[in-house]
Amino acid sequence: MPKSQNSQKPHDRMAAFLADDLAAVNKLIRTRMASEHAPRIPEVTAHLVEAGGKRLRPMLTLAAAHMCGYEGPYHINLAATVEFIHTATLLHDDVVDESAQRRGRPTANLLWDNKSSVLVGDYLFARSFQLMTETGSLRVLDILSNASATIAEGEVLQLTASQDLATNEDVYLKVVRGKTAALFSAAMEVGGVIADAPEAQVRALFEYGDALGIAFQIVDDLLDFQGDAGAIGKNIGDDFRERKLTMPLIKAVARADAEERDFWVRTIEKGKQTDGDLETAVALLHKHDALTDTGVAARAWATKAKSALSQVPDHAVKQMLVDLADYVVERIN
Amino acid sequence: MPKSQNSQKPHDRMAAFLADDLAAVNKLIRTRMASEHAPRIPEVTAHLVEAGGKRLRPMLTLAAAHMCGYEGPYHINLAATVEFIHTATLLHDDVVDESAQRRGRPTANLLWDNKSSVLVGDYLFARSFQLMTETGSLRVLDILSNASATIAEGEVLQLTASQDLATNEDVYLKVVRGKTAALFSAAMEVGGVIADAPEAQVRALFEYGDALGIAFQIVDDLLDFQGDAGAIGKNIGDDFRERKLTMPLIKAVARADAEERDFWVRTIEKGKQTDGDLETAVALLHKHDALTDTGVAARAWATKAKSALSQVPDHAVKQMLVDLADYVVERIN
Repeated sequence: MPKSQNSQKPHDRMAAFLADDLAAVNKLIRTRMASEHAPRIPEVTAHLVEAGGKRLRPMLTLAAAHMCGYEGPYHINLAATVEFIHTATLLHDDVVDESAQRRGRPTANLLWDNKSSVLVGDYLFARSFQLMTETGSLRVLDILSNASATIAEGEVLQLTASQDLATNEDVYLKVVRGKTAALFSAAMEVGGVIADAPEAQVRALFEYGDALGIAFQIVDDLLDFQGDAGAIGKNIGDDFRERKLTMPLIKAVARADAEERDFWVRTIEKGKQTDGDLETAVALLHKHDALTDTGVAARAWATKAKSALSQVPDHAVKQMLVDLADYVVERIN
Repeated sequence: MPKSQNSQKPHDRMAAFLADDLAAVNKLIRTRMASEHAPRIPEVTAHLVEAGGKRLRPMLTLAAAHMCGYEGPYHINLAATVEFIHTATLLHDDVVDESAQRRGRPTANLLWDNKSSVLVGDYLFARSFQLMTETGSLRVLDILSNASATIAEGEVLQLTASQDLATNEDVYLKVVRGKTAALFSAAMEVGGVIADAPEAQVRALFEYGDALGIAFQIVDDLLDFQGDAGAIGKNIGDDFRERKLTMPLIKAVARADAEERDFWVRTIEKGKQTDGDLETAVALLHKHDALTDTGVAARAWATKAKSALSQVPDHAVKQMLVDLADYVVERIN
């Protein structure tokens, strides 16, 4: 592969490779976010869908379908479905988190109101089910309705797991699957299912998406303590301030002595944070190798994602997926 | 029919007639609202599902399936689906309307928080799609995903139509279909579809549900100006205070002279309401026969519902559906 190609980010190379498909997906999204009666719906949706998201999830579906030799039209439907489900969850997340910014722009709940975000999210969920029903594949409906339930369940679990120092890595993994990995794995899996790929391949596609999603979210949670704000689009320490028990914190809490435990009880469980607490928290993470070990865990998931692909036929886009798994963990400092 | 039967309310007679099915529906609902990982989900759901709702929508599905001679198991799935969609929309509605009470009890958003209501609603939507996927009927999925989109679209339309004196009866009808009639008509239609009934019957079932839902909502909106608070579980004048343009108001605004129009601009468009305004509004509704004419419209929809049933085979439950349409408009003073 020429160096000029390799120097591009893997998702940019995927976008170039899948350009025709992505154009068809974008066209379908624009058609289906329309509403004859309620112009507020396309306004809110366009704000988010056209805000320059990377279309990572729809690209996973398109890539999976291509690797499995699919030549029909329905991978476009499924890619649009996956993006609609993602957009709906973002709209609802911003209400739940009371967020003011996403992708560097004001959130829909701030520009319009929480009501519009809730209802337009519901509309997009319904539209996503219409899109997948059109494929005529009950198995696809089964996979994506299960993924939707896992997403909502993971979000509710995160609500109750926040501020709870008893949250362990098992619970964290369930939250992460709900927040991120369930849609990644379903996006890959339906690409194989629509292509009628052999079961071993479908399973491998699922495994890749699951492991990639988990690696992706662990790195996000790691960068929250060590990234630079510009690169990740959010502020260092947001999770600490919101008292979310992500992997680095869970590791540090598990290794805390009595005095350190008092610190975590005060800042996370009771939420009584003052100036300097974030710095203390980061120092404790370093002291117990919590950030280093979180990085190790993320790399192990990325390796798992890549090895799953050994079950999948060789294809130009397959190497991009391998590179994507590497890229996700390369973001770690 | 013996008088002792007829003196019962039609939905109570339906509940007695469908008791075995309803027990199966309730059992399925309890199974599917469980969550292995997030106990908050069944807590919130049970608060609403077990609050003594009339199960009107699932009974429509069960009744339609029986009238069309269905003998399989999937009408139970579909009835549970319809109740889950209804419960999800109630959870989201209470967030959108910032409601404090439903069915005489505190709302979930008040007992827990808006976050839980949004996310548990999403979970129930996803669960409803799992339940209907199990029926193996793509047509059912098509009908219910379309209904879900219509519901969300109607709710968004209501957001933007509120406070807007240009809202006419066409817009009102679209809002009403979204709020109420779309799920009534889909609930009836899928009962016929799962029974593989002839198209004319399926169409008639849809028409009954659509007309019944519209009559039901118009009467609700009428009673908001003339009911007694205990009987309808909400306060007189709520819609006026929330500046919702329902049929009585739309008729009065259309017939207003210049001075009356100023009153509506101040109270509805600008929302500047003071003591005595509700009494003035009700007087204007009477002056222009807006309440009487709204009652006439509701009765016409109830008649339409009943005549649709002439296409449906005779059955013990069919007379109860006829009586239900009469009962809906009998609530008018």
